[in-house]
Amino acid sequence: MQYPKHLQKLIEELKRLPGVGSKSAERFAFHMLEWTPEQLAAMGRTIQQTPERLHCCDVCGCLQDDDGCSFCDPKKRQCRMLCVISSPRDAFAIDSSNSYRGLYHVLGGLLSPIDGRGPEVLHLDRLTRRLETQEIEEVVIALDATLDGDATAHYIRDSLGELPQLRISRLAFGLPMGSSIDYVDGDTLSRAFSGRQIYSN
Amino acid sequence: MQYPKHLQKLIEELKRLPGVGSKSAERFAFHMLEWTPEQLAAMGRTIQQTPERLHCCDVCGCLQDDDGCSFCDPKKRQCRMLCVISSPRDAFAIDSSNSYRGLYHVLGGLLSPIDGRGPEVLHLDRLTRRLETQEIEEVVIALDATLDGDATAHYIRDSLGELPQLRISRLAFGLPMGSSIDYVDGDTLSRAFSGRQIYSN
Repeated sequence: MQYPKHLQKLIEELKRLPGVGSKSAERFAFHMLEWTPEQLAAMGRTIQQTPERLHCCDVCGCLQDDDGCSFCDPKKRQCRMLCVISSPRDAFAIDSSNSYRGLYHVLGGLLSPIDGRGPEVLHLDRLTRRLETQEIEEVVIALDATLDGDATAHYIRDSLGELPQLRISRLAFGLPMGSSIDYVDGDTLSRAFSGRQIYSN
Repeated sequence: MQYPKHLQKLIEELKRLPGVGSKSAERFAFHMLEWTPEQLAAMGRTIQQTPERLHCCDVCGCLQDDDGCSFCDPKKRQCRMLCVISSPRDAFAIDSSNSYRGLYHVLGGLLSPIDGRGPEVLHLDRLTRRLETQEIEEVVIALDATLDGDATAHYIRDSLGELPQLRISRLAFGLPMGSSIDYVDGDTLSRAFSGRQIYSN
């Protein structure tokens, strides 16, 4: 039994969402059939308007609102620190953790030797230009704890290593909060051991 | 940290999809930010066009394509049987099971004594008019195995019970295929016992 053409088209569109397979897309589509035309129009419009309404900041690459980039606002930010991330989303996650109030720099992607993504995806020239023009004391590399994140972090450290008086740091690896030792994987445990800290009062 | 306004709006729209909470909606939205304007426009358009492109058949209430209702096509259907369902989606599910090739009739909803949905939601007059004008020999009630489905099935049986020469049946209850007895709930087991069939060769 074939679905009507438009329904099939709607299902195909919904399947482009991450983690949404045929079954979920069908569920979404049939649910949407119960919406009013106004609700459908509102959702369609919001999706269509996205390219014109949402922009990345020219300086840091984070998502900005109509009234400028709140991640670059010198009044709210500690402008001597720069955190390197791989996606605009990460800035929201890090800000929400209340552990960092410096500036951000979004890379164009992560290196991936396996998928053939080389250094050109990083647009490192943008980063070095910022470091030349802004007085940054520390670059914090906050990339995924994956092979690609590792490769990219190493590459950035090597590229920036020659800049004088620039501290380059990277987020710590270790046990995630709330974890039990016997459930943590071996890689994490070994990083937690090698990065162990003196525990004194 | 607040998301840009339009991003927040997109997230709110996506949260209207069934089973999609804040986290999933954020994931969808950030994924969509990587789509091209054309991809976003295509999805938005498909959603907006839904009310004008998808219609329910005036006769059976199933979803129909531009070229008519395939569920009402007398050439492909056994026109003496009518299956009563509560949603257009059920027709696709039943057809896919290859166990039925008769006609369908979609109710306007299910009775729900708890939510205060009374017989008016069923639009039973549409069903009785069909039974008067078409030569139906059997009505198969295929409603959910829930309280609401039960209440609705009883109500329909009582309403149609006076029509002469009309057989009214209801889908069997029992063990779902692939289930183990020790995992099946008590209600299902008790329906499977009361509906047990003579097992002879």
